[in-house]
Amino acid sequence: MASISAEHMEQIELQRRELQQTRRATVDSLDEIIYHPFKFLDHGFFRVIDYMGSDAAIVQAARVSYGQGTKHVSNDRGLIFYLMRHRHTSPFEMCEIKLHVKLPIFVARQWIRHRTANVNEYSARYSVLSDEFYVPEGDHISAQAATNRQGRGATLGPERQNEIATSIQDNGTRSYRLYQDLLGDENSDDPGLAREIARSVLPINIYTEWYWKTDLHNLLHFLALRADPHAQYEIRAYAELLMDIVRRWVPLATEAFEQYRIDGAEVSAAGLEVIRGLIQGQDVSQESSGMSAREWRELMEILGRSE
Amino acid sequence: MASISAEHMEQIELQRRELQQTRRATVDSLDEIIYHPFKFLDHGFFRVIDYMGSDAAIVQAARVSYGQGTKHVSNDRGLIFYLMRHRHTSPFEMCEIKLHVKLPIFVARQWIRHRTANVNEYSARYSVLSDEFYVPEGDHISAQAATNRQGRGATLGPERQNEIATSIQDNGTRSYRLYQDLLGDENSDDPGLAREIARSVLPINIYTEWYWKTDLHNLLHFLALRADPHAQYEIRAYAELLMDIVRRWVPLATEAFEQYRIDGAEVSAAGLEVIRGLIQGQDVSQESSGMSAREWRELMEILGRSE
Amino acid sequence: MASISAEHMEQIELQRRELQQTRRATVDSLDEIIYHPFKFLDHGFFRVIDYMGSDAAIVQAARVSYGQGTKHVSNDRGLIFYLMRHRHTSPFEMCEIKLHVKLPIFVARQWIRHRTANVNEYSARYSVLSDEFYVPEGDHISAQAATNRQGRGATLGPERQNEIATSIQDNGTRSYRLYQDLLGDENSDDPGLAREIARSVLPINIYTEWYWKTDLHNLLHFLALRADPHAQYEIRAYAELLMDIVRRWVPLATEAFEQYRIDGAEVSAAGLEVIRGLIQGQDVSQESSGMSAREWRELMEILGRSE
Amino acid sequence: MASISAEHMEQIELQRRELQQTRRATVDSLDEIIYHPFKFLDHGFFRVIDYMGSDAAIVQAARVSYGQGTKHVSNDRGLIFYLMRHRHTSPFEMCEIKLHVKLPIFVARQWIRHRTANVNEYSARYSVLSDEFYVPEGDHISAQAATNRQGRGATLGPERQNEIATSIQDNGTRSYRLYQDLLGDENSDDPGLAREIARSVLPINIYTEWYWKTDLHNLLHFLALRADPHAQYEIRAYAELLMDIVRRWVPLATEAFEQYRIDGAEVSAAGLEVIRGLIQGQDVSQESSGMSAREWRELMEILGRSE
Repeated sequence: MASISAEHMEQIELQRRELQQTRRATVDSLDEIIYHPFKFLDHGFFRVIDYMGSDAAIVQAARVSYGQGTKHVSNDRGLIFYLMRHRHTSPFEMCEIKLHVKLPIFVARQWIRHRTANVNEYSARYSVLSDEFYVPEGDHISAQAATNRQGRGATLGPERQNEIATSIQDNGTRSYRLYQDLLGDENSDDPGLAREIARSVLPINIYTEWYWKTDLHNLLHFLALRADPHAQYEIRAYAELLMDIVRRWVPLATEAFEQYRIDGAEVSAAGLEVIRGLIQGQDVSQESSGMSAREWRELMEILGRSE
Repeated sequence: MASISAEHMEQIELQRRELQQTRRATVDSLDEIIYHPFKFLDHGFFRVIDYMGSDAAIVQAARVSYGQGTKHVSNDRGLIFYLMRHRHTSPFEMCEIKLHVKLPIFVARQWIRHRTANVNEYSARYSVLSDEFYVPEGDHISAQAATNRQGRGATLGPERQNEIATSIQDNGTRSYRLYQDLLGDENSDDPGLAREIARSVLPINIYTEWYWKTDLHNLLHFLALRADPHAQYEIRAYAELLMDIVRRWVPLATEAFEQYRIDGAEVSAAGLEVIRGLIQGQDVSQESSGMSAREWRELMEILGRSE
Repeated sequence: MASISAEHMEQIELQRRELQQTRRATVDSLDEIIYHPFKFLDHGFFRVIDYMGSDAAIVQAARVSYGQGTKHVSNDRGLIFYLMRHRHTSPFEMCEIKLHVKLPIFVARQWIRHRTANVNEYSARYSVLSDEFYVPEGDHISAQAATNRQGRGATLGPERQNEIATSIQDNGTRSYRLYQDLLGDENSDDPGLAREIARSVLPINIYTEWYWKTDLHNLLHFLALRADPHAQYEIRAYAELLMDIVRRWVPLATEAFEQYRIDGAEVSAAGLEVIRGLIQGQDVSQESSGMSAREWRELMEILGRSE
Repeated sequence: MASISAEHMEQIELQRRELQQTRRATVDSLDEIIYHPFKFLDHGFFRVIDYMGSDAAIVQAARVSYGQGTKHVSNDRGLIFYLMRHRHTSPFEMCEIKLHVKLPIFVARQWIRHRTANVNEYSARYSVLSDEFYVPEGDHISAQAATNRQGRGATLGPERQNEIATSIQDNGTRSYRLYQDLLGDENSDDPGLAREIARSVLPINIYTEWYWKTDLHNLLHFLALRADPHAQYEIRAYAELLMDIVRRWVPLATEAFEQYRIDGAEVSAAGLEVIRGLIQGQDVSQESSGMSAREWRELMEILGRSE
């Protein structure tokens, strides 16, 4: 089953053809892909439904705050970098984006933990869910990590992968059949079990949909956590493409975000001590640093010294 | 399987025996039931873990705001009723409560929509979930409502109820067996599928747990929506007992809440027009009122005129 | 001094002349007044800077939630009224608006209590404030209310009004002169007192500016409180015009808001009892109702029975 | 005038003498100073009014999330450090604190920008404000910084300091006299100007009071920003002592906060490049780094290389 119906695609294409005139600030490169569904996993997608603001809106809000005080920051790029670096977050909140997302319930449960957002989700109390379940593919079917309790480790062989994929798909199919049995035939006299309780047999890899709206500051925070290698692959897939969408929308803010957050690092007091020692050519070790093995390993990685 | 293990109950009883001294305000009737698990559904419970404030704390905060301006409100009861009536909500935010809740995932998904709260949920990425699924009982197994798309209607016969309960339980058991197969044996060489993906086959009636903390204003809003007859039975069960817990904690605020919210009503402009006509003995009808059939029916119910 | 400089007005007019093309939903009647400063009080204004969504966006988000479940609500108007009536607030959060507001500090302090909003305020640590103070005019210079501690009562005579206006203006002028003295001459060698401390002598009727962004649900809540007759006149002036702006933006939502909130009423349990008695022609009185004198008076007003 | 009246102090002492028994977790070292006013500036103070949770509550919430997954973190200290380091913020939200604060309005305006908090402020619409204004002392009366637009620079001579202090005090006294004139005599027939408008002549260094309640995560964020050397001295004074109070309350969380936030540093991608070069003994300079002069200077400071 396709993630989006042919009928829906047609409506989207019609909507994409309509152009309106506005006095509002627009961002052509984002307007270009508006409404278009980007596909993820087997049945998932997201679409940008609307947006407010741009790099210029961030600058505009900051200049209200600082008044003449920002005259000496010569250009927009410099100001946005300054704001990001000093975590002056409120100007980034002046941009807003709205997405339409289709995603498995277990991904939705991670996503919704970001509370500063507006959400309208498809209700399985009102309406019947579709027969679409997330089934991982190929190397995404991998073993429990040995060292990290929260994550995946070694890849499993292709035969075992197939076996697992089949059993996950079968579980969905069987549960959905029960769901349909419980609901009964809407057109018969027998009303069937209430939808709000029948849906309780469906597995958490069934797909749901929602409209989700948030501001740029909170979106970047979402990306910092969910595009991170430690995030579960299934939500990371969405976050990584979202990063590209954000780049189309606010290229300067995205560049600053990468410079100071994604490609930068937080160093602890102990870590700074180690760095000072290394620069001075001292002999430093994990033992003398007071850091845990994991902290030490991560610091060495940041410093490009991992063996 | 019990909703709470004997070992856990023993720890709770030990904890309940320890008394500390404090200068903080305490509420004896709430302290009395602290840590105690109140049971819901088949495996669910909640426990009050901690609280801050009391009816006196609401009054105290309001008196800071109004200064000498509240002298003419002679007593605490009057002031709390005044605040509730005029939706002066900030003093109610000065009370806070923390719960430990065990609940099915589909209930958790409704609950988490209340965003102004703090949550720590059991993580199925880190740890293995238990073999506990919500299976409705007796008359909670009822048909889809005919008039209201979101809700339950006629009761089903006992035989059909049994059949449904069994199929829901079987679905849980079968899915859990697959989950265990996918996880493999932790003590063997075969690492098994990563927990974060294996859990995706479990149905949304499996139980999860969380710590949940919110303030009294937001808790009352939660109760207004979730203890309402239109709420799904499975979350209403929690909300209704929570109302009793809130009564132990802040009896005056609870009484005011019932007077102005739960047992009061919002009347539209059109509804007020109808009421004025009825009082003057005029002949009013749904048609002349401009109200929908449902609005009219609900207004007549409020006025005790439903036939 | 004008509330907005001629130079600034010229920039605004230039900006208003530029039209962009977009695929986003636009609202022509709101686009029409975008960037235009609406003036308040003596030096205040607000301007709509940007917006996202429309009545159609509310409907769109609701239809995602209810799926086929909304088919029976035949049209957008019906659905929006249904959502407003049942306080299904999340679809209204799908619309967002951004304002540029110039307002006295004591008004700003009331406004900022609405926490679910994004704000960038002019910083008096960075930059020097302008010599603009709010001085009330004519009948807005009135006596303390006798019955209501929070509000205005009888009008004062024109002579007393003039006297008061002059003293308020003089206080501003004198404080501003001190502020300038403390700051010293930026171009001299003497650096003058730090701006962040010099500003502490300015009165709270000095004007400040900010960009303020919020969603429609929170904006309507703001209007319900601040366009209310009990709100202080100076913030009500902004709120009342904002109501007209909202009407341009989302006419159906505004109509529903008036029907169910502004022109409707909340009636307590005791109030419903009184209404039922009146309809049945019983003899009811404040004494028998258990209501306070004020509650009784307000109920009689709602019922059109105030003498 | 004292910051707190003798009568109020007596009430506080009485309250401090009362001990209650509770099953809740208590923190003796915080209980010890509860209700006690710590004084700031000339008339300011804060008092801890209530609290919920402790270091143990953070651990407890984290263990709910991670289940058996946290067994390998051997102790509470290790777990709290782990949570802080990885910005797993939700367990810190499980602790809550309530303060009573007296502070100048211009400080309150900075403080209130922290939105995730509950506030009840003294209302100058309802009640009359006291004759208390913040007047800086000695070296806090200093010149505008030359390099940093937002901050203080060189100290002014003692004579100029006295002159400034006197003029600030006089401004308060004069404004307050006008305020009283406008209010008139409450006991006379003349009602005087409405309080809500009379207060508009008061300077923003007048003191106000509020109850303020927030969770530990948001409090630490507040401290990171407001106990920082770049924060204005007048709010920093509160934040610095608050840090000591937090240490009494949650010593392990405070230690972790210092290790990873306060005494640690965020390093940008370019900064990491410089550090790697320095460790390898390469010749690096601001020019080659692509960093701004200020970024470079700050990096060198962190590395202990500032000349």
